[in-house]
Amino acid sequence: MHEGPDLEADDVVDGALGERSPRIAAAHRLLRRSRRTEAGEFLAEGAQAVGEAIAYARNNPGIVHELYMTSDAATKHVDLVRAAFAAGIEVTVVTTRAASFLSDTQAPQGLFIRSKAIDVSLAQAVSSGVKLVAVLVDANDPGNAGTVVRLADASGADAVIFAGDSVDFYNPKAVRASAGSIFHLPIVRAGDPLELMAELSAAGLSVLATTGGAEVDLDQARNDGLLDLPTAWIFGSEAHGLPESVIEAADEAVKVPIHGKAESLNLATAAALCLYASASTQRHQG
Amino acid sequence: MHEGPDLEADDVVDGALGERSPRIAAAHRLLRRSRRTEAGEFLAEGAQAVGEAIAYARNNPGIVHELYMTSDAATKHVDLVRAAFAAGIEVTVVTTRAASFLSDTQAPQGLFIRSKAIDVSLAQAVSSGVKLVAVLVDANDPGNAGTVVRLADASGADAVIFAGDSVDFYNPKAVRASAGSIFHLPIVRAGDPLELMAELSAAGLSVLATTGGAEVDLDQARNDGLLDLPTAWIFGSEAHGLPESVIEAADEAVKVPIHGKAESLNLATAAALCLYASASTQRHQG
Repeated sequence: MHEGPDLEADDVVDGALGERSPRIAAAHRLLRRSRRTEAGEFLAEGAQAVGEAIAYARNNPGIVHELYMTSDAATKHVDLVRAAFAAGIEVTVVTTRAASFLSDTQAPQGLFIRSKAIDVSLAQAVSSGVKLVAVLVDANDPGNAGTVVRLADASGADAVIFAGDSVDFYNPKAVRASAGSIFHLPIVRAGDPLELMAELSAAGLSVLATTGGAEVDLDQARNDGLLDLPTAWIFGSEAHGLPESVIEAADEAVKVPIHGKAESLNLATAAALCLYASASTQRHQG
Repeated sequence: MHEGPDLEADDVVDGALGERSPRIAAAHRLLRRSRRTEAGEFLAEGAQAVGEAIAYARNNPGIVHELYMTSDAATKHVDLVRAAFAAGIEVTVVTTRAASFLSDTQAPQGLFIRSKAIDVSLAQAVSSGVKLVAVLVDANDPGNAGTVVRLADASGADAVIFAGDSVDFYNPKAVRASAGSIFHLPIVRAGDPLELMAELSAAGLSVLATTGGAEVDLDQARNDGLLDLPTAWIFGSEAHGLPESVIEAADEAVKVPIHGKAESLNLATAAALCLYASASTQRHQG
């Protein structure tokens, strides 16, 4: 695949691929959602994401294609270079300008992996024995999306599902906010939320919709035993919350209690409270 | 104070103050921390912050100085104009360009209040009967700072204290992330964290430091009765956590349990779990 471009015409500086190289240009196009979807690939930037990607690659050969590093980053992260070689991942040295071109941040760390998409089907993620699942409906902010992946991982959730009109979780901001957790637990892209909820119910999960308008709050839900069952938590968008149809189709609507004068919590903090309440309840059963 | 500039030389378009007006230029300078400190004033942008500021002004006359609005915003938020008048707040119509000049966002909402600084002394915030306080040490991200103010409010905390080398909570990003909560509960600026902790202890608060390296986790802390006492939770910076000296000086170090493979939680989600665990425990006592 990389033999295509004429190497004589390639942009190589002191052995490092430059930003005008066809391979770097191709990787750069993965910053766009349309190209990611077309190619079935994404980029992940930074030492943490790269480290987690390499760890993932050890158990999933053929998924992580290539590690791009500036020579500075390679010097600083010799351990990652070594681990990448050991995992059979191609390592390519790139110029600082090429690193800027691949980055969507102001201060690129100078290392990136290019990986195949790693999301799985609903059936693969939600098999028997699943106890805790986070579902985002119409999540429109990539930072929030990644943060929820990170905290779902931390809470011990079995999967994160993006339903409805949600952002692409391979968006560079989402990948960064996940702090490597995108490689830790199954991520699923689902369509219609109502169909998804029916499938989650069929898989034996209690489906709880979060909304500020709910009558039951999280403390009551815990005390009433509502969190004892395997649970799928459904979270709406920051701006609009959940559609009424989703709230009605859920087994129960639950709100995070607001003890002070704030109108609401942001998505990630509300999700943290719900997922950890379930995790804590389920662990005390075990 | 506003009579100073020569009105004939002022930048007024159809009765609206333009961005070259001395008053707008003076307000614009409040986007800089040094100027905010010097003037003892700050700006808050958007309908939510403006609404909360006006509600605050009703009980605290003389604090909120002025409401700047584009004519579009005034048309859209007639209720806020009326409430501002009722609260004795001067309302000034500004041009769209002036609104852009006062804003630090890409899409200004076209309404701003200029307010006196509203932080209080530690003695004012931590009086007898205080049960739950959030302390940030060296908080370096304004978005995080504001988000913690919002969730501390939601959890029913009595105060938020910014200690050590923390960002200015009047930073426009911090004010915006607080979603109006900066006007809901006492905010304190403290210096040395160790001195602060001694004062919190003297005020009868149990001082709990959060760190991933703690032996006790949040579930154990709750089960062992550690959260039954009035509590000050101490949170470190996203990047570096808490200084060792702070952890040692605390009554107890507590970690949020990580059930999955994530290395840590972000500051706001960790703070949400700790503050709500205390709130829930204290409420079940009551």
